[in-house]
Amino acid sequence: MKIMVINPNSSEEMTHHLEKELTQIKRPDTELSVVCPSSGPISIESNYDAVIAASCMLPLVKEANTKGYDAVIIACFSDPGIEAAKEISDILVVGIQEVSLHVAAILGAKFTILTPLEKRIPAKEYEVRRYKLEQALASVRPLGMTVAETDANPAKTKARILEVAKKAVEEDGAEVIVLGCAGMVGYAAEVERQLGIKVIDPSSVTLKICEGMVDAGLKHAKRAFYATPPAKLFKGMGCNG
Amino acid sequence: MKIMVINPNSSEEMTHHLEKELTQIKRPDTELSVVCPSSGPISIESNYDAVIAASCMLPLVKEANTKGYDAVIIACFSDPGIEAAKEISDILVVGIQEVSLHVAAILGAKFTILTPLEKRIPAKEYEVRRYKLEQALASVRPLGMTVAETDANPAKTKARILEVAKKAVEEDGAEVIVLGCAGMVGYAAEVERQLGIKVIDPSSVTLKICEGMVDAGLKHAKRAFYATPPAKLFKGMGCNG
Amino acid sequence: MKIMVINPNSSEEMTHHLEKELTQIKRPDTELSVVCPSSGPISIESNYDAVIAASCMLPLVKEANTKGYDAVIIACFSDPGIEAAKEISDILVVGIQEVSLHVAAILGAKFTILTPLEKRIPAKEYEVRRYKLEQALASVRPLGMTVAETDANPAKTKARILEVAKKAVEEDGAEVIVLGCAGMVGYAAEVERQLGIKVIDPSSVTLKICEGMVDAGLKHAKRAFYATPPAKLFKGMGCNG
Amino acid sequence: MKIMVINPNSSEEMTHHLEKELTQIKRPDTELSVVCPSSGPISIESNYDAVIAASCMLPLVKEANTKGYDAVIIACFSDPGIEAAKEISDILVVGIQEVSLHVAAILGAKFTILTPLEKRIPAKEYEVRRYKLEQALASVRPLGMTVAETDANPAKTKARILEVAKKAVEEDGAEVIVLGCAGMVGYAAEVERQLGIKVIDPSSVTLKICEGMVDAGLKHAKRAFYATPPAKLFKGMGCNG
Amino acid sequence: MKIMVINPNSSEEMTHHLEKELTQIKRPDTELSVVCPSSGPISIESNYDAVIAASCMLPLVKEANTKGYDAVIIACFSDPGIEAAKEISDILVVGIQEVSLHVAAILGAKFTILTPLEKRIPAKEYEVRRYKLEQALASVRPLGMTVAETDANPAKTKARILEVAKKAVEEDGAEVIVLGCAGMVGYAAEVERQLGIKVIDPSSVTLKICEGMVDAGLKHAKRAFYATPPAKLFKGMGCNG
Amino acid sequence: MKIMVINPNSSEEMTHHLEKELTQIKRPDTELSVVCPSSGPISIESNYDAVIAASCMLPLVKEANTKGYDAVIIACFSDPGIEAAKEISDILVVGIQEVSLHVAAILGAKFTILTPLEKRIPAKEYEVRRYKLEQALASVRPLGMTVAETDANPAKTKARILEVAKKAVEEDGAEVIVLGCAGMVGYAAEVERQLGIKVIDPSSVTLKICEGMVDAGLKHAKRAFYATPPAKLFKGMGCNG
Repeated sequence: MKIMVINPNSSEEMTHHLEKELTQIKRPDTELSVVCPSSGPISIESNYDAVIAASCMLPLVKEANTKGYDAVIIACFSDPGIEAAKEISDILVVGIQEVSLHVAAILGAKFTILTPLEKRIPAKEYEVRRYKLEQALASVRPLGMTVAETDANPAKTKARILEVAKKAVEEDGAEVIVLGCAGMVGYAAEVERQLGIKVIDPSSVTLKICEGMVDAGLKHAKRAFYATPPAKLFKGMGCNG
Repeated sequence: MKIMVINPNSSEEMTHHLEKELTQIKRPDTELSVVCPSSGPISIESNYDAVIAASCMLPLVKEANTKGYDAVIIACFSDPGIEAAKEISDILVVGIQEVSLHVAAILGAKFTILTPLEKRIPAKEYEVRRYKLEQALASVRPLGMTVAETDANPAKTKARILEVAKKAVEEDGAEVIVLGCAGMVGYAAEVERQLGIKVIDPSSVTLKICEGMVDAGLKHAKRAFYATPPAKLFKGMGCNG
Repeated sequence: MKIMVINPNSSEEMTHHLEKELTQIKRPDTELSVVCPSSGPISIESNYDAVIAASCMLPLVKEANTKGYDAVIIACFSDPGIEAAKEISDILVVGIQEVSLHVAAILGAKFTILTPLEKRIPAKEYEVRRYKLEQALASVRPLGMTVAETDANPAKTKARILEVAKKAVEEDGAEVIVLGCAGMVGYAAEVERQLGIKVIDPSSVTLKICEGMVDAGLKHAKRAFYATPPAKLFKGMGCNG
Repeated sequence: MKIMVINPNSSEEMTHHLEKELTQIKRPDTELSVVCPSSGPISIESNYDAVIAASCMLPLVKEANTKGYDAVIIACFSDPGIEAAKEISDILVVGIQEVSLHVAAILGAKFTILTPLEKRIPAKEYEVRRYKLEQALASVRPLGMTVAETDANPAKTKARILEVAKKAVEEDGAEVIVLGCAGMVGYAAEVERQLGIKVIDPSSVTLKICEGMVDAGLKHAKRAFYATPPAKLFKGMGCNG
Repeated sequence: MKIMVINPNSSEEMTHHLEKELTQIKRPDTELSVVCPSSGPISIESNYDAVIAASCMLPLVKEANTKGYDAVIIACFSDPGIEAAKEISDILVVGIQEVSLHVAAILGAKFTILTPLEKRIPAKEYEVRRYKLEQALASVRPLGMTVAETDANPAKTKARILEVAKKAVEEDGAEVIVLGCAGMVGYAAEVERQLGIKVIDPSSVTLKICEGMVDAGLKHAKRAFYATPPAKLFKGMGCNG
Repeated sequence: MKIMVINPNSSEEMTHHLEKELTQIKRPDTELSVVCPSSGPISIESNYDAVIAASCMLPLVKEANTKGYDAVIIACFSDPGIEAAKEISDILVVGIQEVSLHVAAILGAKFTILTPLEKRIPAKEYEVRRYKLEQALASVRPLGMTVAETDANPAKTKARILEVAKKAVEEDGAEVIVLGCAGMVGYAAEVERQLGIKVIDPSSVTLKICEGMVDAGLKHAKRAFYATPPAKLFKGMGCNG
């Protein structure tokens, strides 16, 4: 099967890291393209960034539909533009947040999302409500580090993830931890071992679930919420964007 | 006070209609600018349209901040880009949906939203959840007419609004009807009279509430959900979009 | 426009303070009457007080209807008798709690209500549920001071408001603080400045929103929840109370 | 044990009927007083009626506390003044709605409340939320008859109860029917037999549960929600009402 | 009336204790049989234990139906097999958890359940959702003691109950404490006295409420959720188990 | 990988059908064992059946743990004994209902569950709450046919599925249909084609997702909700059941 993984920010470096991570775990019969838009923000840390990134990324979703892909994975934990992407796509589109939150809800009674900064807590809570999973949310906990800091300081990042995940377990009743940012990737196994809890790395988990969904012939419903948009004039952009 | 009303689609005709409607009801001491972006979709009928429109409209929000406006009203019932707009704005930003739904919840036990087409029902239900008002929602009811049809056929539109609003009252327990599309504007008074229920025209109501909010010195919180985005590189767009 | 503001307790002193506060901020074209019933409790600190106060205050609502007022504001944060007042009124009736909670929900992701004493927490939580806004509630936090103490000791009151509001922000994720008692009036601006968050003074905010609502021609729905009560015998009280 | 049953409206006729009904089913060791206030509305069909009735009825609750009663039952299905009554009482106070809704939730997956008129539906839904039982509510269904009509026309009343209860079962999934008005009393057994579902007559069921609660030594919590109100001046009414 | 109380674990010692406790408080006209199955786990501390215990206990429910009992009480706080028991029974079946949680919800704004070990918290939260009472739950708080420890060390048990109940009141807003395990029985009165809050001993309270329910002629609905199972082959067990 | 699929009823015929269906779609590198217990009910149509079936099936879960399996799938739509199975298992256990409902929630705004008989509706609604997915439930709709009838009459079954699914789409807003019974297997593709909506066959979809989960190294959390039960005496059954 052919899967396009779209990193919706414009960072080629982050895209290469993602490609390397996912290539190691893909099934032998899966053909992966890991891409990012050439314009837009180099990271996504606000709703503003997400809106701009979504508008830059949507042409890639269209491309996946015309070039024989079986599925598209939007690989940023805020799932920017996910509804729009599903609307303009006849092939399966999933976001790494929606898949990892549903998987987390299967694996334990409640999950906690780790996010870089405290001010992103309401955005994450809002996204959990978007997926109608608020009953399964233990908490959103911030690391208190920017994405740049998590990249620059792996030792501190690992220490903070361990510390915050421990609090989520002890104070909020979390049984599953979801690593809510690319900068936290790579520490899941160690946190699982040290704390004895399940830790989800969203991109990896989503790839494996997506392979299963394609195998099962699943696509998102096109009847209403994700119905194909009506054709219309987009000024300054030609017809239909 | 100075209020910028942004029609987020690119239809100058619709923008002129909106300007005309709002100019009639504004306070004498309110200075209105009713504007629309020069690019983007000419109407908003999907999440895809909304994402593109939001990206095209956000520069106008920035402009309002630098040109001495007191508030911005996003005047499309799906409130496209509302979170992003609040993030990048130090002056008050409100959407016509968020204000009209909260006002509807004050005026009666439950409200019904009228929307053009059946396939938009899940999108409207999702937006009501976004504003945490799902407990006050009686129903979302479609007219079964496209926006274009409502423009082209006022008699049929009025008849359908009356018919559907009546069903909302009798079958869903609605006490307040919210006209969820610009194409339904202008029929509120007649529906109120014929059915004896409250009908909300979102743009008009929002302007009057916004005037009161500016008077009261209210602004949206900037602490977390609507915090100013961090500065960063936007490829192909210069710094900070 | 003519607005009657009813302080539902029988304290003339508190009524004068309220009149002074609101007169300063009303629109020039607004004619205000700030009144209180001549009987009933001199403060409202329990549901018992609220029931008695409501029964004493309702004749004033009737009076507003017959004397040409455009709207009534019930100006006590527990909104005593608000449903009954809306039932017996053909002109707009709003409570300062219902309006300020809806405005708070527009301004930020979650709000916290400050209340004088810990034992009032369940009553406030119940009132938030009454307005169907429980999804937007961060917390109810007590000052640990009686209303009398807040009146007698402004310095301590301000210090406690600052301290408790800070905890609400840091521990509960509040982005907006609602001052849930007349004894807390007058500190909003300073708390906003010191903590960098939005603080709502319910009476002031409600007056400005009410002016906008009257301008917009809004009234509460009379179809069911607030339908006019059927005429009947009230023993010992003449017909219809 | 001694139980005071308070009919909160001022109808002596209805009070006598209630006394007769309850006397037949009380335990031999239960001493009943069935009383009503001498002033206030002769029936309760609105929130306005409920507020006035509550203020007239509360002195009876105080009397029950000083005259050696073990419990008070508020016997009107809207439970008027229930929170205030619990606040001013050291002995157990229960409402016939709160007890019958909790019992209904034990007996089946979902219950339906029958109410006289359609316009009372939002009030009943609000009361169910007050008791935090909205998850167990199938529906509120109106008979389309006033209380006076149910009194005057027993044959039509029985027919309507059967018809409406049948719809509640078939269309709303109700497994238990709660007869939400005194005018419907006396038909429970027949509806149970004809439709094969459980039907709750609130006054009777509450008396039996209340006897068990008194036996078990249960009282409502006095810590916060139902804490005794602080003593204070009630103008025109002496101290403490 | 005749009531069968089933201790669903196989501990005869615990069954004798329960019999002694309940015999002291039953009505004189109540005939009690307190029994346990001869096989199955000697205590119930997991869902696994609950499933096995339920399968062992269900024949006793059938026996109660054929031997003239009026009601069955399942006397283990996790209410094992309660739905199955109601399905196979034409006489009233209640669980001590369902009854005590509904009674707790009547007595105060919110309740806390005490449970032996932290790892049982999600199971208790899930059970509260089963009874649709999650809106009334303040918290589930663990003692940090196994059932065996609570049996072996009464002094420590009492001290821990006091300490944990105090935290539930002060930090979670609990007004009612439900003792969620047989090992906590016997301390209710002392906790009530020392902390000034309501404490519910589930078995005792359920017996008294059950007596009232039988008096009132109440049975669970047999229409759908608790409908009698269709007859069928049970391999290795004869027809119908 | 090695996956044990347990049909929890004792019907060997149904087990063979399931084996045939799943063998056709399994990955080449997946080794399947499709088994059923030798005792217990031959079909599961009540909670009573589910409890007995669970107790009979749990030894197979233990066996999977000792014989080198990577995962267990409980293949009956009511997921009987799922919590107990997860407790006693160190390898991944999933139920076909939990997986298919979460997948349905990813694919569309709301899903409808088809169930054989009307009286099973509350049980299905309760199970959806168990998985905390009630916000995504459009409805549960019965075919009005017993399991035996669906087996005996494929033409009528297909017609009913089409008819009921159509109503779910048109009246309840369903975008995804979940076939909630083994007797409905095999019609998914045709319903998808005729109605243009997504239809989920739970066993097939769960197998493909489970393969992905095993690939990703996922297991359920063992910290609290699914913690291994403490060892104890099971009378008549040896130690630990």
